[in-house]
Amino acid sequence: MNVMPEIVNRRSVRTYTDREVTDEQVALLIEAARLAPSGSNTQPWDFLVVRSREMKEKISKADHDQKWMMQAPVFIVCVGNLKYRDDGDMERVIRDSAIATEHILLQAEHMGLATCWTGWYTQEEMRAALGLNERCYVAGVVTVGYTDHKPSPVSRRRIEYPVL
Amino acid sequence: MNVMPEIVNRRSVRTYTDREVTDEQVALLIEAARLAPSGSNTQPWDFLVVRSREMKEKISKADHDQKWMMQAPVFIVCVGNLKYRDDGDMERVIRDSAIATEHILLQAEHMGLATCWTGWYTQEEMRAALGLNERCYVAGVVTVGYTDHKPSPVSRRRIEYPVL
Repeated sequence: MNVMPEIVNRRSVRTYTDREVTDEQVALLIEAARLAPSGSNTQPWDFLVVRSREMKEKISKADHDQKWMMQAPVFIVCVGNLKYRDDGDMERVIRDSAIATEHILLQAEHMGLATCWTGWYTQEEMRAALGLNERCYVAGVVTVGYTDHKPSPVSRRRIEYPVL
Repeated sequence: MNVMPEIVNRRSVRTYTDREVTDEQVALLIEAARLAPSGSNTQPWDFLVVRSREMKEKISKADHDQKWMMQAPVFIVCVGNLKYRDDGDMERVIRDSAIATEHILLQAEHMGLATCWTGWYTQEEMRAALGLNERCYVAGVVTVGYTDHKPSPVSRRRIEYPVL
C-alpha cells in the first residue's frame, strides 16, 4: 500500500498553458470541496470563481502582484465565513475552509489539472479586492489550469513522532 | 469524470472493531500528511501517535468526554506549531495543519481505514492534556481503526458561487 497518487503527484504549479478549464470541471472541483468535513457540519465556506481578466488582475495584485497567476484561466477563491458559525470561532472557520480548499487541489490533480494554492496577501487587502467583510477569512486563491511544466517535488523535513 | 472516491466515501466513523492498526499503516498516514502543501513550505505541524489506554482516556476526556473514542486502537493528534514560523502567524499555522490533517483522513480512506476528525475541546484543555505550550494549536485528534458500521453520507448544503 502506498500514499495515494493525488497526494504524491500534486505540485504547486506556476506555469500554465492556454488550455481552457470548463464550467463543468470547475463545478466538480467545488463539489469536492462541498464534501469536506467540518466542525459540527457547519460548512463555513464560500467560493468565488474568477475568469475575467479584470478580476484576475485585481486579485493577483493583492496577492503580492504575482504576475504568473495571470496565465491561469481560472482562480477559485476559497473563503471561510463566520456567518456559518454562531459562536464566532474564527479558528475553526480557518481550519474548515482549509480542508475544503485542499479537496479542490486534490480533486484537480485527480482530473489532470494543475493548481497553486496562493496566499501571499494580507486579509485586509484581499478582502478589499473582493469586497468581503471582516467576518471572512480568505483561506486561499487557487489558480487552476493545465501545465506542461510540472515542477519536481518540493523537499520536506523528516517527521519524528512520539508513540504515547 | 467524478469526484475522487476517497473524498466521496470518507465518513466520520464513531464505531470501531477490535482490529488493530499497524505501525506501518500509521507511518503511511503520517507520510501522507508530510506531503501536504504549506505556506512557504514551512510545514508547521507535529504529530503524536497515541496507543496507550491511559493517554487515550486523558485525551478523550479533554475531547468532551466522548466515550466512543476509546474503541479506536489509535489516535493521531495533529498539532500546528508556531515554532515553525518566524512571523508568529497562527492563522496560517492553523490553515496548514488542517491541510495535513485532511491528508491523513483521505489516505486512511484510501487504505480502507476509518477515521473521525474530532475537535470538541478547548485549546487550553487539550494542550494541558498533551503537555503542549500555547504556541501550539491542536488542529485535530483523529481516531483511526476499522469499522463495520460505516455511516450514511452527512447532508451538505447546496453551494452557489458567483463567476466573476
